[in-house]
Amino acid sequence: MTKDIAAILASPGFASAADALRGQHDRFVEEIIAITEIPAPPFKENRRAVALERMFREHELEEVRRDEIGNVIGLRRGRANGTTVAVAAHLDTVFPEGTDCTVRREGTKLFAPGVGDDGRGLAALLAYIRALDAGMIETEADLLFVCDVGEEGKGDLRGVRHLLTEGPYRDRIDAFFTIDGLELETITTVAVGSYRYRVTFRGPGGHSFNAFGTVNPAYALGAFLAGMAQVEVKDDPRTTFCASVFGGGSSINAIPEEVWVEIDLRSEDQQALDRLDAEIRRLIDGAVEGENACADRSSGEIAAEIRRIGNRPAGRTDHDLPIVQAAFAALQAFDFAARTGASSTDANIPMSLGIPAIRVGSGGTGGRAHSLEEWIDVEPELSIRGLTAGLATILGTAGMRHD
Amino acid sequence: MTKDIAAILASPGFASAADALRGQHDRFVEEIIAITEIPAPPFKENRRAVALERMFREHELEEVRRDEIGNVIGLRRGRANGTTVAVAAHLDTVFPEGTDCTVRREGTKLFAPGVGDDGRGLAALLAYIRALDAGMIETEADLLFVCDVGEEGKGDLRGVRHLLTEGPYRDRIDAFFTIDGLELETITTVAVGSYRYRVTFRGPGGHSFNAFGTVNPAYALGAFLAGMAQVEVKDDPRTTFCASVFGGGSSINAIPEEVWVEIDLRSEDQQALDRLDAEIRRLIDGAVEGENACADRSSGEIAAEIRRIGNRPAGRTDHDLPIVQAAFAALQAFDFAARTGASSTDANIPMSLGIPAIRVGSGGTGGRAHSLEEWIDVEPELSIRGLTAGLATILGTAGMRHD
Repeated sequence: MTKDIAAILASPGFASAADALRGQHDRFVEEIIAITEIPAPPFKENRRAVALERMFREHELEEVRRDEIGNVIGLRRGRANGTTVAVAAHLDTVFPEGTDCTVRREGTKLFAPGVGDDGRGLAALLAYIRALDAGMIETEADLLFVCDVGEEGKGDLRGVRHLLTEGPYRDRIDAFFTIDGLELETITTVAVGSYRYRVTFRGPGGHSFNAFGTVNPAYALGAFLAGMAQVEVKDDPRTTFCASVFGGGSSINAIPEEVWVEIDLRSEDQQALDRLDAEIRRLIDGAVEGENACADRSSGEIAAEIRRIGNRPAGRTDHDLPIVQAAFAALQAFDFAARTGASSTDANIPMSLGIPAIRVGSGGTGGRAHSLEEWIDVEPELSIRGLTAGLATILGTAGMRHD
Repeated sequence: MTKDIAAILASPGFASAADALRGQHDRFVEEIIAITEIPAPPFKENRRAVALERMFREHELEEVRRDEIGNVIGLRRGRANGTTVAVAAHLDTVFPEGTDCTVRREGTKLFAPGVGDDGRGLAALLAYIRALDAGMIETEADLLFVCDVGEEGKGDLRGVRHLLTEGPYRDRIDAFFTIDGLELETITTVAVGSYRYRVTFRGPGGHSFNAFGTVNPAYALGAFLAGMAQVEVKDDPRTTFCASVFGGGSSINAIPEEVWVEIDLRSEDQQALDRLDAEIRRLIDGAVEGENACADRSSGEIAAEIRRIGNRPAGRTDHDLPIVQAAFAALQAFDFAARTGASSTDANIPMSLGIPAIRVGSGGTGGRAHSLEEWIDVEPELSIRGLTAGLATILGTAGMRHD
């Protein structure tokens, strides 16, 4: 068994696998299109999941199933050394129900919402499975292939969270890859954590003229925002906050009964995120107290509700760990620059749990992710080189038998 | 000619008019129902206007027309002394298109949106015209009957504003009555003025994490609201402000490109309203400058747009003026208590122009105006007494020939 990238690349098995990635590239492209054209709006990934489950079965994985939360999983057994490496891509897109997901092809370019994020990533899982089979590669660790739900936005990483903390594979995953987006050269080793809240200030309301002087939740909101603007955070670990979306009030001639703002708190460091969280909560309490102290409470008081609408833990995979080192070696072997970066992906969950994890790209180029004009270029040379580097990256952690 | 209420009430002409109000009360009730059942949503008063125009023609008024803004007007000539007294009721309701305006009758109660505000007021105009004709009453002033558009909410008094400042009767109205709502005993002599704005703060936006530090219009909004909460206003003349309705921002992970708040400024006194207005504008400017001064403007600056969405001038009709004194005398003659009050009605416009003007009610009782459960009671004794007092009120200003 070896985890050495040079040895892996020199093996006949890997050579056959690489040949399969090249020889089946057209099939890979067809699968990107087929997968992308099955809509997978947030919280409605089921149709796409059913299709991937069928594909997993056709690839003769073991233990293929859709789990309780909706993830599709399938196991490719290794040498039975008892370790498991998960390789995931996410089913969901950011696009709402009714979005036209038809793929338009122009030369080597494919245009469609979600085609690169993460349609190509899902198709890459299938390409890797076939390549491993074509090369008759026996891995050291079991490979658990995962098509997970809920990576985007309000999905809040619920698929991978379930997988790693509740499902039958919890406590059984030793390393974790998420194939998310295209970009190969930046290996995500820092998980930006976030708390997201809808903060609602409520009061008794009343007529704007007749009840003037009554506590107004709008002024508590104002005091909160004014305080938020003064909060100091560090650049390193990078920590940020944002007041983002507003609403509330029913009529211009009425003191609002409720007003709300959605806020986004982020940090590369969980402790910094928790300190920011505590400060924001103090500001909210102070804003409520301030308005209650200076206006008429005879018809009711101001109160705030802080409803969590997002919770992504921060985390980090040390640069020195083998999973990162192997990824660097694999990418460099295929002439890709390699650097580390920070983002918020399915890898947040394993990183926060101390499981070595990175996000890697599925290769190729593209743009406009999260927009209706999203596109990828499947020009074969770069596309295949990216896929092949990705497979080497995985094998550098999972280990392979070499003769 | 006389404007003396006692003389008017003692005249045979008025007695015949009063008999007509009594004898035709059933017809009056039928007309309330017919008018109320023609929907007249904000800015969509046309169907009801067409019906009232037809009714005005049937009553043989002169110069009957719908003017450019949509008001229905009709003239009942007086002795041709060159003065004109306007008697108005408003066509529009607060209820949106599609609201069921069917009148449900239970005993002497009528239930329907808009039945009292201002369905009964519009029907009262017709009842007055018939009563004047039945009494063969010659008035000193011409009586200009007006069914006007745009009294409610965002209608912003546009009907009466047009009548008195742009239409052919501008500069020709010497006194103005609006028959608005039921309540007779409070004569509105103070017009609460208001400015209403949508204040929008705009900036370059950006990703909540990647562009952190960029100017955020939410914090300018916060500073504005925090300042607004500290503004001091007087109780007399009563002056108020309210931050009412909020919106803006597109995504929790984005610095908003715009956020907005709708605000309502009111005063019984135009100068106090203008002082408040200036202070609010200073606060908005200061909030914009503050955010631009303390955050990154490299991708753009914060700017504010102040869009006026309402403008109702303040005004006042002195208690000593004959129009008020005659109203007191007429109401008291019919055993109604009489007092003055402040509100925001079509009378704002003439008051702000220095035209003697009051709001009076159409009589009867009721409740839940501006709600779907709006109702009136047309129990004949009180209903007829109210109508008769109203007619006397008008004649006390318009003057009548007595033999």
